[in-house]
Amino acid sequence: MPKLEKYTKKINYTYALGAFPSIEAIIHQKDKVHKLIVSPLINTSLKEKLDDLCKNQIRIEEAPKALEKITGKDSILVAAVVEKYFSDLNAQSNHLVLHNIMDGGNLGTILRTALGFGIRNIAIIKPATDIFDPNVIRASMGAMFQLNVMEFDCFDDYIAQYKSHVMYPFMLHASRPLEESVHIFKQSDKPASFIFGNEGSGLPEEFSQLENPTRILHNNSIDSLNLANAVAIALYAFTEGSFTK
Amino acid sequence: MPKLEKYTKKINYTYALGAFPSIEAIIHQKDKVHKLIVSPLINTSLKEKLDDLCKNQIRIEEAPKALEKITGKDSILVAAVVEKYFSDLNAQSNHLVLHNIMDGGNLGTILRTALGFGIRNIAIIKPATDIFDPNVIRASMGAMFQLNVMEFDCFDDYIAQYKSHVMYPFMLHASRPLEESVHIFKQSDKPASFIFGNEGSGLPEEFSQLENPTRILHNNSIDSLNLANAVAIALYAFTEGSFTK
Repeated sequence: MPKLEKYTKKINYTYALGAFPSIEAIIHQKDKVHKLIVSPLINTSLKEKLDDLCKNQIRIEEAPKALEKITGKDSILVAAVVEKYFSDLNAQSNHLVLHNIMDGGNLGTILRTALGFGIRNIAIIKPATDIFDPNVIRASMGAMFQLNVMEFDCFDDYIAQYKSHVMYPFMLHASRPLEESVHIFKQSDKPASFIFGNEGSGLPEEFSQLENPTRILHNNSIDSLNLANAVAIALYAFTEGSFTK
Repeated sequence: MPKLEKYTKKINYTYALGAFPSIEAIIHQKDKVHKLIVSPLINTSLKEKLDDLCKNQIRIEEAPKALEKITGKDSILVAAVVEKYFSDLNAQSNHLVLHNIMDGGNLGTILRTALGFGIRNIAIIKPATDIFDPNVIRASMGAMFQLNVMEFDCFDDYIAQYKSHVMYPFMLHASRPLEESVHIFKQSDKPASFIFGNEGSGLPEEFSQLENPTRILHNNSIDSLNLANAVAIALYAFTEGSFTK
């Protein structure tokens, strides 16, 4: 492996920054973790935990200078070097489809919430923010490593592969409230695609041609909900009753 | 009024940065807006809109240097100088209570979502991030100017004033799922307080002594939901059915 570089979109690996995301990467994607970079300042119990998790299969390198170079700060004491990978989406499962999402922090939060509600298949429709950006991985708190994520050049490419999915595009001008779409979803035995558009502009108008354009009702005091909040509300409503105490 | 300074917590005014938050300040809190600072680069239609809204009651000052000084960037073309103010909470209305919230971006998003779901009374329990920070106002997209916000030194001070509110503290270890609390809420004719804790640590254990500790169920793949997402889900669920198309 060549010398580690500061992350850019064109290198073929990324970094899980911090102990929590690094541990998630090791637990869920061990094959993809090239090595661990640690600072000599990490505490003994974390060091032991990492040693135990890596068990001679993943090299742990004490390299504070490399760590500072790749993270750009001196506060991060652990980073995992992770090969970039995509995973085919499960054709029988529900999908979250994110169309032209541009805000990395938003995307990370969305990935974590999707995982929490059991939506493990994520389609990213380009152009979109780089899902492998270390800030996205960090905002997801490593949730990314438990998800199947696939990029598509355009929505047509996605729909061509998943024709039998029932489509729920979320649109400000849709006439059907979320509650009705949840009812339809619960009656159906087909897998669903929950589709959300860009933070500022939402989904293009043509998505209203799909089966079930859906809107989250709120009052007129605001123009629209924050995207991550809208996704959270929708996934909560569609999966309500699925989780036990 | 003295010369404008870069925002710090100790000055007695704040800034609404950008056209949208500035307009919200003028529309909803005209008495609190000292003046508007604009760049000579703003376009004619925005200038006309601002002139119209301010109608000789609010001075518009073309001062690009002051604007750059207070915003720290050259991309913001309008800022409103707004006096800091708190408002008494309505004792008959539902409240959102935010305990020791520290992330300003989170707080702004939460304020906007609360407004959208008609929760207009917000209690901030200190210590907490500065609600008047221009970044909070901006993240709220000016929603703050339509809300009654009050700070309290501690939760006891809040509860002493709003004894008849039914309390719903959101806690990871609560045994009652959100759906049951929504049911209780809909049966009750008393106002409610929806209480959320710090981004990292949640509410202190003693909040479980309150009436209705509530949990948003999700799977075990994540430790907890993002705070803003949790608030959004809860406020959606409590107000579901209140808004029409």
